[in-house]
Amino acid sequence: MTRNKTTREHGIIIGSKPTGPRNQITDVPGVTVGHYTLNKNRVQTGVTAILPHQGNLFQNKSVASAHVINGFGKSAGTIQLEELGTLEAPIVLTNTFGVGAAFDALVAYTLERNPEIGRTTGTVNPVIGECNDMFINDIREQTVTKEHVLQAIADAQDHFTEGCVGAGRGMLCYSLKGGIGSSSRKVQLAHGSYTIGVLTLTNFGKLNDLRIDGQPIGQKLKGRIQAQEKKDKGSIMIVVATDLPVTDRQIKRICKRTVTGLSRTGSMIGNGSGDIVIGFSTSTTIPHQKSEEVMTFSSIHEEDMDEAFRAVGEATEESILESLFQATPVNGRDNHQRPTLTELIESYPIRFQPTRI
Amino acid sequence: MTRNKTTREHGIIIGSKPTGPRNQITDVPGVTVGHYTLNKNRVQTGVTAILPHQGNLFQNKSVASAHVINGFGKSAGTIQLEELGTLEAPIVLTNTFGVGAAFDALVAYTLERNPEIGRTTGTVNPVIGECNDMFINDIREQTVTKEHVLQAIADAQDHFTEGCVGAGRGMLCYSLKGGIGSSSRKVQLAHGSYTIGVLTLTNFGKLNDLRIDGQPIGQKLKGRIQAQEKKDKGSIMIVVATDLPVTDRQIKRICKRTVTGLSRTGSMIGNGSGDIVIGFSTSTTIPHQKSEEVMTFSSIHEEDMDEAFRAVGEATEESILESLFQATPVNGRDNHQRPTLTELIESYPIRFQPTRI
Amino acid sequence: MTRNKTTREHGIIIGSKPTGPRNQITDVPGVTVGHYTLNKNRVQTGVTAILPHQGNLFQNKSVASAHVINGFGKSAGTIQLEELGTLEAPIVLTNTFGVGAAFDALVAYTLERNPEIGRTTGTVNPVIGECNDMFINDIREQTVTKEHVLQAIADAQDHFTEGCVGAGRGMLCYSLKGGIGSSSRKVQLAHGSYTIGVLTLTNFGKLNDLRIDGQPIGQKLKGRIQAQEKKDKGSIMIVVATDLPVTDRQIKRICKRTVTGLSRTGSMIGNGSGDIVIGFSTSTTIPHQKSEEVMTFSSIHEEDMDEAFRAVGEATEESILESLFQATPVNGRDNHQRPTLTELIESYPIRFQPTRI
Amino acid sequence: MTRNKTTREHGIIIGSKPTGPRNQITDVPGVTVGHYTLNKNRVQTGVTAILPHQGNLFQNKSVASAHVINGFGKSAGTIQLEELGTLEAPIVLTNTFGVGAAFDALVAYTLERNPEIGRTTGTVNPVIGECNDMFINDIREQTVTKEHVLQAIADAQDHFTEGCVGAGRGMLCYSLKGGIGSSSRKVQLAHGSYTIGVLTLTNFGKLNDLRIDGQPIGQKLKGRIQAQEKKDKGSIMIVVATDLPVTDRQIKRICKRTVTGLSRTGSMIGNGSGDIVIGFSTSTTIPHQKSEEVMTFSSIHEEDMDEAFRAVGEATEESILESLFQATPVNGRDNHQRPTLTELIESYPIRFQPTRI
Repeated sequence: MTRNKTTREHGIIIGSKPTGPRNQITDVPGVTVGHYTLNKNRVQTGVTAILPHQGNLFQNKSVASAHVINGFGKSAGTIQLEELGTLEAPIVLTNTFGVGAAFDALVAYTLERNPEIGRTTGTVNPVIGECNDMFINDIREQTVTKEHVLQAIADAQDHFTEGCVGAGRGMLCYSLKGGIGSSSRKVQLAHGSYTIGVLTLTNFGKLNDLRIDGQPIGQKLKGRIQAQEKKDKGSIMIVVATDLPVTDRQIKRICKRTVTGLSRTGSMIGNGSGDIVIGFSTSTTIPHQKSEEVMTFSSIHEEDMDEAFRAVGEATEESILESLFQATPVNGRDNHQRPTLTELIESYPIRFQPTRI
Repeated sequence: MTRNKTTREHGIIIGSKPTGPRNQITDVPGVTVGHYTLNKNRVQTGVTAILPHQGNLFQNKSVASAHVINGFGKSAGTIQLEELGTLEAPIVLTNTFGVGAAFDALVAYTLERNPEIGRTTGTVNPVIGECNDMFINDIREQTVTKEHVLQAIADAQDHFTEGCVGAGRGMLCYSLKGGIGSSSRKVQLAHGSYTIGVLTLTNFGKLNDLRIDGQPIGQKLKGRIQAQEKKDKGSIMIVVATDLPVTDRQIKRICKRTVTGLSRTGSMIGNGSGDIVIGFSTSTTIPHQKSEEVMTFSSIHEEDMDEAFRAVGEATEESILESLFQATPVNGRDNHQRPTLTELIESYPIRFQPTRI
Repeated sequence: MTRNKTTREHGIIIGSKPTGPRNQITDVPGVTVGHYTLNKNRVQTGVTAILPHQGNLFQNKSVASAHVINGFGKSAGTIQLEELGTLEAPIVLTNTFGVGAAFDALVAYTLERNPEIGRTTGTVNPVIGECNDMFINDIREQTVTKEHVLQAIADAQDHFTEGCVGAGRGMLCYSLKGGIGSSSRKVQLAHGSYTIGVLTLTNFGKLNDLRIDGQPIGQKLKGRIQAQEKKDKGSIMIVVATDLPVTDRQIKRICKRTVTGLSRTGSMIGNGSGDIVIGFSTSTTIPHQKSEEVMTFSSIHEEDMDEAFRAVGEATEESILESLFQATPVNGRDNHQRPTLTELIESYPIRFQPTRI
Repeated sequence: MTRNKTTREHGIIIGSKPTGPRNQITDVPGVTVGHYTLNKNRVQTGVTAILPHQGNLFQNKSVASAHVINGFGKSAGTIQLEELGTLEAPIVLTNTFGVGAAFDALVAYTLERNPEIGRTTGTVNPVIGECNDMFINDIREQTVTKEHVLQAIADAQDHFTEGCVGAGRGMLCYSLKGGIGSSSRKVQLAHGSYTIGVLTLTNFGKLNDLRIDGQPIGQKLKGRIQAQEKKDKGSIMIVVATDLPVTDRQIKRICKRTVTGLSRTGSMIGNGSGDIVIGFSTSTTIPHQKSEEVMTFSSIHEEDMDEAFRAVGEATEESILESLFQATPVNGRDNHQRPTLTELIESYPIRFQPTRI
């Protein structure tokens, strides 16, 4: 499969930190991503799953947190994330009306691997993010099923496609075709080298606001498309992974900085945009069962956080751009479609000015 | 159908404020409650739905808020409640693994009544509370379906049963049989007379901790039952309704005071107990579609809140006790059962001392 | 100095957990408490300081958190506590208008011990709690000075007086004389024995609501005092100390459970009551300066938290009662005074029924 | 007094919305701003006060809220803002160690105007923001006094100076001289025309990160100054005023969007930067004393918020730039100084490209 040119292949270098080898969230060791895509006529939607590690996620919980940038959204699982600071199942992204199916699937997935749940131990907390793909997809059909979600999880691997796949199938971003993007950054500290990876499901914004590395590209492109501007509804789901040894409070602080990258692409965080961040560290796992011992773990000093903050801002900005550059044409319900950034630029080249002046 | 003696018929008067005519959440005009109960062999569970008014809930949203006492829980919909301060669908309570079905049902319910959703307007925010009834119910079977939830909603009326019905079917409270309880209080202010109603789904606590109007009844009763104490897992869902003209911030403040009633029944708010409060006012509705005018609404002065705080604390305390007194014997999976408070007291009377000394 | 009979000497045993040797917050090793009391005519107020350890508090920060039960209050320092999870100076309690002086004093105290502040390193975060003692004290005079606060800090030791001393001098509780109370509980876990200590500055509530170990004593006593009921204004400041190895998130969860003890004494958490909890652990200190290494620390498993939750609820309840029992008569501005619980009970004995039935 | 060229006079137009007549926060009718500046040798600091209206602020409270972007800061008063949603005194900005003096001053100011405080009614909640100006100013001297703060309040008027005055005297921004900036935007809705004004006290960032309307100007300028980069410590205080009829929840939502403007100037929201937003509406005032009537007020529909969100993002971005363009040379302790943006640009012109392409 050929893929579109990446943001970097267009000559656009966001920020100053080096990327990981894949420039994807899966540069964080152990993290995998899977998709299930539905693309039949009016049904253009799907599911994307992110797994923090390859062991039993319920038995070995990841330190995690969430942050709500704007809460016009239906994401599930954040109450317990906030209270306990741990993730115990794959993160699932899908369309707004797929949350119920995702919930059922994550319960089924976890029950299958943990026969003691519901017998001698408690339940599992499904963490689910969603965006509303109603313009391209016939969301009223509620087509996402438990099986689709389980297949997305089963598909998870360290190589994955970006663009209009999985949950990104029917999404719009800055009035263009959006979807799945990803990027990563290396973080160098005195005690080691670490990675922060970001995956975004983009479905927000108006074209006029789009900025690429600070340039008001949206204003340039606006004249070239007929389609009227959409209201800034939609949403963005941002998943942050890292192997930095951090506490849940520190992960939350890192999640909060995604907003710098989001803002720099032009978002004004619209009323109708449910902008949610879910983050986890693979550095420490917390066992479901307590032992007789006190637990011991590591964390970086707060002064080291600046490196993580810069990294996550850059990776988020690039991840959003990547969702635009990797988007491909999708024809959806009632013939709805949106231009892709790649199309627009190919037919009428814009020179991206190098930002290092 | 005969019902058990109520808390008040046992001579127990919680607090000083008068109750509404039914002493139930439906004393708040317009509020209705419906149940769907599953009670076949190993499946002892169900659904309870609370409707804030009888119009189109999506078109006319209720001012609402939520409060998390302890977040070890999987409730859905609180992010948007927090952001927008409105409720736009029935509140559904069910078992932990029924949240997915409840989500699907609330979407279907709202889609049916609002054909423009997913076409010209956005999506709906399902608000769902849950407790884990795994001791009595075979929760691993994931038996609650979308249809069950829709039937609970369809069943909603101003008269409703308490005890082991609907979502309360399989719940435990203070190691006894728990379930659904409700109570209400009148609030008299200079500008009018109002009602606060509470409905609780109780599934928490250890018998030794149970207090009835301050008396350590749990310690007395403990010797009379063989069954070993359960860990303080489980949860409590608390729904608060009022016709007081209040803002979402004020509703949140009222929701926070439910903890006084919860604490006075003996709860120590255990680690594993997801204790969530959802509250709404019927006084004002916010239209889905904006008009050309500024909206106008009313609210009480903050100094009037004390009356509401006292009322909701009392109603919560009585509602929890009522869930115990209205509970009936349920035989569940693997012959699991728990004594009811009524049984224990009938077989070995405790004199409840009047609290007015 | 003779002191009043304690809660326990009155035969009142709150909860089931054993107390530490002093039954005070200073049972947590390293913690000290100091007072400075102003008691001249119309000026009946003061300062109470709590030190988490005896080293340099700025260089070795304590893991800490805060929780707002009701935010009608002017406490300082909670924003940074929330963000960073550390305490870096003594906690100071005083009257509402003494917060400015306390801020200045904590800055001066820390500058003196850390010459690099304001030169090569940043600033210090003063954490200050307050209640409004305007009924007894002439609060308009703004009499608390920086020097008073420094003297309270200098006075800190492991033995300290409760009652109408320090910040407690002019406070009211349940319409009786309130002030400083303290209590502690032992927590036994598989990996060790720990202590949770609580200190309360009590200034809230109406007599009619007072409950002692569940008994509605306030209703009994109400008839015996002429003075009219006060509105439930005022506040309570609750300081929680522990040597449990816990994260800041876990400390916050512990702080949240103080509300169970508060509620059981009869509080309805009034609108005008600023009820704030500040908690810290002495188990781990975080160095101000980062080293080249990752930091390592310990924490208990979330399942062990129930023991801490029960302990802090019991200690808070007893600490509030102790503030009432240790209160002594204070004659303040315009001859204002309130009865003490000890007076009322001595002149007209109430038999406290043992709670173990 | 001559002033520097404004951002707009440099040809830089941020965003698309029109400004108010002054392009300052005082474009919101009733709002005034005053400064008191200390500029003697090593003491280069001051106080800035913002008054929401010209009546008795305590008797007629403004609907208000706060938002913490990053909580490494010592701002006071946010707990009560959050709980009650009202502002009842001038907002004061000063250096970190001036918070105590500001607290005392705001108490004194309010006591003088309200003789019943501390007698028949409660206390006042001082809201104070701060940044650490230790590089230029000898902050260890704790030079700000109660009188300075009272003079800043007394100085408040609708015309005010920006740059290195008041609290801005000793601040740094993007390693250049920072200080006070302000900007405003008009918001046109179906039911009326409104204004959003922003005032910023800027003291954060590294030069390399500075972007002006998306252009990486900081990277260009970096080579021209000797002074080494500072760590991204410091902070930004953002005050938002509007005459939009909004609830406290809506004001909070508006406050949250300031981060888009902040991010677009290049901030990565550093660990050590206490970034706090305080916002209020002049549209409605809440009386201190309750009447016998229910209160009535107005608010915009949530769908109208997008206009406010865009306006506040633009005004914040321009306000930060304005603090840089209005900054003037200040020679502080130990001869510390930083270049001003105006100096750098005059000596070595950068052409700002118009953003409308």
